[in-house]
Amino acid sequence: MSPDDFRRHGRAVIDWIAGYMESVETHPVLSRSEPGEVRARLPQHPPEMGEPFEAMLRDVDEIVLPGITHWQSPTFFAYFPANASGPAILGELLSAGLGVQGMLWTTSPACTELETHMLDWLVELLDLPERFSSRGPGGGVIQDSASSATLCALIAARERVTSGACNRSGIDRRLTVYSSSEAHSSVEKAVRVAGLGSDSLRAVPIDASGAMKADALRMQVTRDVADGATPCLVVATAGTTSSLALDPVAEIAEVCESHGMWLHVDAAMAGTAALCPELRFVNDGLESADSYCFNPHKWMLVNFDCDCFYVSDRAALINALSVLPEYLRNEASESGDVIDYRDWQIPLGRRFRALKLWFVIRHYGIEGLRAFVRRHIELTHALVEWIEDDPDFEIVSPPWLNLVCFSHRAGDEVTQEIMRRVNASGRMYITHTRVDERVVLRMCVGQTHTESEHIERAWSTLRQTAAEIAAERG
Amino acid sequence: MSPDDFRRHGRAVIDWIAGYMESVETHPVLSRSEPGEVRARLPQHPPEMGEPFEAMLRDVDEIVLPGITHWQSPTFFAYFPANASGPAILGELLSAGLGVQGMLWTTSPACTELETHMLDWLVELLDLPERFSSRGPGGGVIQDSASSATLCALIAARERVTSGACNRSGIDRRLTVYSSSEAHSSVEKAVRVAGLGSDSLRAVPIDASGAMKADALRMQVTRDVADGATPCLVVATAGTTSSLALDPVAEIAEVCESHGMWLHVDAAMAGTAALCPELRFVNDGLESADSYCFNPHKWMLVNFDCDCFYVSDRAALINALSVLPEYLRNEASESGDVIDYRDWQIPLGRRFRALKLWFVIRHYGIEGLRAFVRRHIELTHALVEWIEDDPDFEIVSPPWLNLVCFSHRAGDEVTQEIMRRVNASGRMYITHTRVDERVVLRMCVGQTHTESEHIERAWSTLRQTAAEIAAERG
Repeated sequence: MSPDDFRRHGRAVIDWIAGYMESVETHPVLSRSEPGEVRARLPQHPPEMGEPFEAMLRDVDEIVLPGITHWQSPTFFAYFPANASGPAILGELLSAGLGVQGMLWTTSPACTELETHMLDWLVELLDLPERFSSRGPGGGVIQDSASSATLCALIAARERVTSGACNRSGIDRRLTVYSSSEAHSSVEKAVRVAGLGSDSLRAVPIDASGAMKADALRMQVTRDVADGATPCLVVATAGTTSSLALDPVAEIAEVCESHGMWLHVDAAMAGTAALCPELRFVNDGLESADSYCFNPHKWMLVNFDCDCFYVSDRAALINALSVLPEYLRNEASESGDVIDYRDWQIPLGRRFRALKLWFVIRHYGIEGLRAFVRRHIELTHALVEWIEDDPDFEIVSPPWLNLVCFSHRAGDEVTQEIMRRVNASGRMYITHTRVDERVVLRMCVGQTHTESEHIERAWSTLRQTAAEIAAERG
Repeated sequence: MSPDDFRRHGRAVIDWIAGYMESVETHPVLSRSEPGEVRARLPQHPPEMGEPFEAMLRDVDEIVLPGITHWQSPTFFAYFPANASGPAILGELLSAGLGVQGMLWTTSPACTELETHMLDWLVELLDLPERFSSRGPGGGVIQDSASSATLCALIAARERVTSGACNRSGIDRRLTVYSSSEAHSSVEKAVRVAGLGSDSLRAVPIDASGAMKADALRMQVTRDVADGATPCLVVATAGTTSSLALDPVAEIAEVCESHGMWLHVDAAMAGTAALCPELRFVNDGLESADSYCFNPHKWMLVNFDCDCFYVSDRAALINALSVLPEYLRNEASESGDVIDYRDWQIPLGRRFRALKLWFVIRHYGIEGLRAFVRRHIELTHALVEWIEDDPDFEIVSPPWLNLVCFSHRAGDEVTQEIMRRVNASGRMYITHTRVDERVVLRMCVGQTHTESEHIERAWSTLRQTAAEIAAERG
């Protein structure tokens, strides 16, 4: 494809995306595709000869689009959002166009330095503890996801507590890891991957808000130590997946300190709230954490993937993850003056993801980003009021940010049926969880283009659907 | 950013990339940036208010570009390539524009099904064993990198050999892993991450070609078993990083079979060769492997990241990596009729990377892709002849594909100084390795736009530089 062809086809793709932005609300949010339906429309064999680019864009419309669940729809309220924005998409495009692989500083200094700089900017933007800035012994790095950040934190913790023994000769003692029973499934995945096993993970009980009980943590750790285990890591969650509950980080930090445990704080979704000074309580206690992450790819307008992972002592992370073969040796690395991000992550290679962070922060500015957060919270408050005023629904967890957890008073079956029907309607998409064994609907307001009309429409769809079901049941 | 703004700025970025493609040869291939130079030009604080998009593109030219090492330059011969192409870049752009997160089938059926379909297409394109096709019990998935594929293979192997015991209760026995002393550093990284420790990794001796000695493997495994260890995994390399040596996979498979070990074959770079029927010996023995990976993001025109990872028994992989919390439960997953790729990888979230594979395969067609491979091999052959005919240089490893390993006869110091100077010249970029303790230059011919003029220029730069150094030394 010549540069001129690229100009032509590139414009067509840009126009396609702009058109998609304009028309996203015309599609059912949750795809109606049946298993195997997309594959059945694809040719069984790859083509012998090249095809015109136009044919691909046509197939995107005809084959791909019906199989898309529209994460960028303003009535996507499922899971947590993975919101995107024009500047982020164009940053990703530029990254693909430059095509650099930033495993080492020397393989593109700008890729590394812009990343370090953006992560430092975010320390300022979110008012994170200075210990996470690269100007001291800490620093930040972009990971693909909070799952990977948790795994890296665990490896660093494991090696710190065993003085590198596990990396040398394998796991040689019983190590324990702690998170609340509401922590993300990636914690269990990490303890498995890292060779500790699920049994090493203590699901610490939660209080009524869904937050970890620090007392229960302390008791569990004491029991484990008495039992001969070596406590290794606590993963505190600042905004759980089910209900955005906030673990008491400061109290947890005290327990960590008295037992030499690594404290990782996972604020994947809620961390973005700290853009706003009035919401910075989300990071209470963070000044005692060893590591922290949040995902601009959830709620900060940066398209997936972009998780920002910080450590207060980068040497601990690098010592745990660095392996240096001859073919990667180079003058710059050996000077000690540069960061080689390959040693801060599991994979070797890496894309130039800092570009999209840079574009987003500069395009919106601090005030623009804050305005997004505040708008989503206002919309959430409106929704909460309507639910509270409705005799058939009830709020299940106290909403403090942009997630509403609610159920129908008629019980799990009706609640679940409401979800099934509103999702099948194509008008919106929500998902569920369980709180105290009860089926609970989750509506997270974080999509880039969600405005009050979308919240209103969603609420009216929910009410109508509930009324329909009530009528059918007599 | 409105859809209209996006159209306007999007065209500017497309034009910028087309211009970059046209001018890439005007930049020094290896960035001349000094440590800290890029950062020093960036504002210390993020902007309060949004900035115009034009300001960002200007800064890309003025601040970012001087800090880029140009992986897309036709005289980039360093490491292994990470080549890209127009259709791949536009596939990445479309993926960012759609902004779907394909962790579950239901979160965008097309994201999962197109991926499965592309991985099956590649089974056909590369004539891979049918056991890796999704039509049987196996299947393929896109990972970010071969490092992650190796880690996933190790976790699956660990759990298969211990019947899931490590995932449940941690590593409870001495497990051993085998690869040649020339295997990629990611194998050691994986054994560390997975909790086995570096001591568990046996660096099996190599023959003169750099390939693993299967006899030595058998002896080492026998010794380890006698010593009470449980052999777990062999990572065979089809194309080592230093010299593209091919481990004898069929012989290794026999050892694996007699000891119940998992066999993973890493063909990250060389796997693309199998596009051409005359080069399919690269996959000799693969029909006995449990898993396999190669990287279209290295030599198949798909921009980073895109590693294709195959397993012959997907249940083994899924059993090892699946954790199912309530908030991810859904009807489609529970029907058992769909693939949820979150269970095939370490992270939870994932981008729609199949689009770029689809665009590349369709744009070039089978014949177009083969033509790339064949052209690079022809260019490599030309270079090899020139080196062989030159009295001052010698070929160190027998080149069979697109990598030339050579040294200056005057010894390591001169060889290293040649590398330093040609890289400093900005005209080309090569890297080094060590073979039998000797410093060896590596030139890998795999960049999308490399033509004979680039090879000629590179060779003349190398010769002139060697002559200069010889003259200085008298």
